[in-house]
Amino acid sequence: MSKRKGILIIVSGPAGSGKGTVVKELVDSHTGIELSVSATTRAPRPGEVNGVHYHFIDKAEFENRIANGEILEYTTYCENYYGTPLKEVKQALARGKDIVLEIEVDGAMQVKKKMRNAVTVMLTPPDGETLERRLRSRGTETDEVVRWRLARAREELALIPKYDYSVVNEDGRAKECAELIYSIILAEHARTKRTKKIIKKFI
Amino acid sequence: MSKRKGILIIVSGPAGSGKGTVVKELVDSHTGIELSVSATTRAPRPGEVNGVHYHFIDKAEFENRIANGEILEYTTYCENYYGTPLKEVKQALARGKDIVLEIEVDGAMQVKKKMRNAVTVMLTPPDGETLERRLRSRGTETDEVVRWRLARAREELALIPKYDYSVVNEDGRAKECAELIYSIILAEHARTKRTKKIIKKFI
Repeated sequence: MSKRKGILIIVSGPAGSGKGTVVKELVDSHTGIELSVSATTRAPRPGEVNGVHYHFIDKAEFENRIANGEILEYTTYCENYYGTPLKEVKQALARGKDIVLEIEVDGAMQVKKKMRNAVTVMLTPPDGETLERRLRSRGTETDEVVRWRLARAREELALIPKYDYSVVNEDGRAKECAELIYSIILAEHARTKRTKKIIKKFI
Repeated sequence: MSKRKGILIIVSGPAGSGKGTVVKELVDSHTGIELSVSATTRAPRPGEVNGVHYHFIDKAEFENRIANGEILEYTTYCENYYGTPLKEVKQALARGKDIVLEIEVDGAMQVKKKMRNAVTVMLTPPDGETLERRLRSRGTETDEVVRWRLARAREELALIPKYDYSVVNEDGRAKECAELIYSIILAEHARTKRTKKIIKKFI
């Protein structure tokens, strides 16, 4: 048990799934579980610490890493790259940390191809009405934007079968969701594909 | 969530794994989880209730059920049959109960063939030395019997890769083991192969 490797947990969920709250709750309440630190080419802001808030690397280095397959998934925003660095994730896993990656469906499937032992969890609202209510209750978007987000959310939810697990986030149940994801992590550590070494102790 | 089907959990473990204690702890501390009630052809003893302690059926009925594939696995003892009745297990699962079946490796593999959604858990001692100490500490068996049981236990433990999960039972940790098996059950309920219906709520 002591020197077991960590597990990479990918958590996806459409707008309205409450993903951010659940992931924060999961990471805050379990010391062995950490959020993946992204790599970025943007400059550090005052107070940001390299390796804590982001891994700050320059553009040439980032593109080099992409070319070498060392970026698990990435996106661009305002002419800067943001992505998940393979090396840092692998190092954290080797230290025994369980690492949570909060990414969208496309990225999740890319990561799963590169790291077959990753565990994928889709967070969902309990039903379509709740989803719509949550998207509308933000109150900041136009009707058109809400309709677009709703359609996008339905597209993402149609991909549930591609995920290993789906977790329903009812209103006010972020803590229970985080605990269910924690149970999933505990269970995955006990899967025989990860625990074969135990046999050596008996033969 | 409310009308979800139960899961059949098969728990195996050699002598010295502490299986009995762990299973009792699991069933006693979670109302939704029940031990499977065996069928038998032996006569009820005073105080035994049909359907609670055993399903009491006669020999012709038992053999009929075996012939019809309605007994998941069985054994004989003192000229009586003891086995797991398929119908009763299926009814309990349909009512949403998670059912625990405490059986040996051969039986476990037979059940898994008939009920593909069953979840298999092998309980193990932490290492060979602890296994041997536990077998000897009973103090009632001859050295030859202990050696035989040890060899048999090692044979069973070599089959860990055939199981979905393996759970290590350290000394004095029966409660923690039961909770880990409970986490496995919670996680299995969230597996997308069991939760596909959630999609219908969004499309």
